[in-house]
Amino acid sequence: MNLILLAPDDLVTPGLARVRNPRRLRHLNEVHRARPGDRLTVGVEGGGIGHGELLSLDAHEARFALDALDQASPPPLPVHLVLALPRPRMLARTLEHVTALGVKELTLLNTRRVEKSYWQSPELTADKIHAHLVLGLEQARDTAMPKVTLAKGFRPFVEDELPGLLDDRRGLFAHPGMPTECPRGIHEPTLLLVGPEGGFIPWEVERLQAAGCQGIHLGPRILRVETAVTALLARLF
Amino acid sequence: MNLILLAPDDLVTPGLARVRNPRRLRHLNEVHRARPGDRLTVGVEGGGIGHGELLSLDAHEARFALDALDQASPPPLPVHLVLALPRPRMLARTLEHVTALGVKELTLLNTRRVEKSYWQSPELTADKIHAHLVLGLEQARDTAMPKVTLAKGFRPFVEDELPGLLDDRRGLFAHPGMPTECPRGIHEPTLLLVGPEGGFIPWEVERLQAAGCQGIHLGPRILRVETAVTALLARLF
Repeated sequence: MNLILLAPDDLVTPGLARVRNPRRLRHLNEVHRARPGDRLTVGVEGGGIGHGELLSLDAHEARFALDALDQASPPPLPVHLVLALPRPRMLARTLEHVTALGVKELTLLNTRRVEKSYWQSPELTADKIHAHLVLGLEQARDTAMPKVTLAKGFRPFVEDELPGLLDDRRGLFAHPGMPTECPRGIHEPTLLLVGPEGGFIPWEVERLQAAGCQGIHLGPRILRVETAVTALLARLF
Repeated sequence: MNLILLAPDDLVTPGLARVRNPRRLRHLNEVHRARPGDRLTVGVEGGGIGHGELLSLDAHEARFALDALDQASPPPLPVHLVLALPRPRMLARTLEHVTALGVKELTLLNTRRVEKSYWQSPELTADKIHAHLVLGLEQARDTAMPKVTLAKGFRPFVEDELPGLLDDRRGLFAHPGMPTECPRGIHEPTLLLVGPEGGFIPWEVERLQAAGCQGIHLGPRILRVETAVTALLARLF
């Protein structure tokens, strides 16, 4: 954790923060082994980054005296990522990877080869997702919370939402065997779709192409979703 | 697992394989739910890839009738990766990521900010490392086993081994704050060094530069080692 990410209501005054979230208190105690007087990098969700001095820490509360939080978060990636829902453990790690890399818009999508049971996973509760996003932000010293939406139907997503998303974004989907290699170092706003383990089915590939998305590949190696997503984002942007 | 990777001594004849490794038998049973008659993609360590028909499977042995194993592995990355030893759980996942991505030469290096206890981890035994390499190969349908070496001293590595490794490789090390952005799409043989959580110390940076390595950065975000390594490899090659 390279940043203590404060929620807006952790701020008592602009110069004083009070943290009561049990996870963060545990983290301050066990990982940082923080002591009063320690100066830590802090940021406010959706706001600036600076330093804070730990005033007190006990089992119920930590208090920080804050300097001006006047540094900006690193720039986001110009991407809306649409990810076929991975299995729960992979989802947890992938949320942290892509948040640390700077993804701010993420849609978790159902496709034919997503196992139905994944949609019942406790990892999909808002609290669990939020916790992984916070870990990714704290890793990368970023305060801008990604927005995660669930799209439980492939067809409604492609028919009702995708056209609007493609109004001002280039549409790409990663799929083994596509003729075009993943482009490098593009800067334009992009919508990137990544299929599940086992890939999109041919009908899904056709629907994405019909909607105006271009299929790209990462080479002949079959990669796990979490490896592939990181590799795609690093190569594209 | 997209490939059953056979050890050379699993081959009874060129057309018949017998698998007795408990992990693989368990995997065939529990993950593949394989039944006699199933045709699976198989490869021999260091050799070719093709299909095999499962003849029998019980708790002690699986037998495969093999077609010609005449497909080649995907090409390797032209990189010797030198990784400051990460903490054990991160090491395990990173070994799988980089093997799947095609790294064939990997040195695990001690640096000042590597915790001493990591060198005592059971994850560093040859068997454990081998198991993770196999998982990475099976993921990417590759049969060429990476070579992993341990370099427990930074100074001996830099003074005695690095000069020879740089004879025919471009030397790069990833370090936050370096002036040069990570290059994209290079194809030349490369030695890539990646520091630990917390980075190289200034003296280490100086030693690497003095040895002829160039410092590169991935941008302002601080990434976990496993994310950074995947991103670096995807951007470089």
